[in-house]
Amino acid sequence: MIRFSVLYPKTDGASFDHDYYRDRHIPLVVATWGLDPANVSIEKGINGPYEAIAHFTFESPEALGAALSGEGMAAVGADVANYTTIQAVIQTSEIVS
Amino acid sequence: MIRFSVLYPKTDGASFDHDYYRDRHIPLVVATWGLDPANVSIEKGINGPYEAIAHFTFESPEALGAALSGEGMAAVGADVANYTTIQAVIQTSEIVS
Repeated sequence: MIRFSVLYPKTDGASFDHDYYRDRHIPLVVATWGLDPANVSIEKGINGPYEAIAHFTFESPEALGAALSGEGMAAVGADVANYTTIQAVIQTSEIVS
Repeated sequence: MIRFSVLYPKTDGASFDHDYYRDRHIPLVVATWGLDPANVSIEKGINGPYEAIAHFTFESPEALGAALSGEGMAAVGADVANYTTIQAVIQTSEIVS
């Protein structure tokens, strides 16, 4: 199993609309990728370097690759400006346990 | 619900023993904190800034605080040198969904 994480570093002068992210952006991603919502988790930072984090679970690197290269990603990318000016950090990992 | 994440940045010249981390260190943490293993997830980095990540789920900030200040944390800290020289980054987040 693969975990694809999108991490938004706390950034001076930047904004992040957590409500829009949860209620509009992540549902758009879930619909675009055809994900089971059980395979998505959203975090709002309390302490540490990140303002917000989203985790997506995929069966394989190939399934992740297909999602990232699929139709609809342009719309997902264009939606980012609606909730933040932060540049996200992307992590892909194997879920070991 | 609270997610406590320990992230190990890829670091030039540093080592990370993923087998020891999975088989020895995380079980020590789980035993020390009295966690349900279902509330723990371990990642091995494929792409992105992190070599390894562990996520721990707690019911509340108070439960996390009790774990971090409890007995046995000295032994947990002393065990780190057995698997890595990387300085971890710590993130605490509210699980929004």
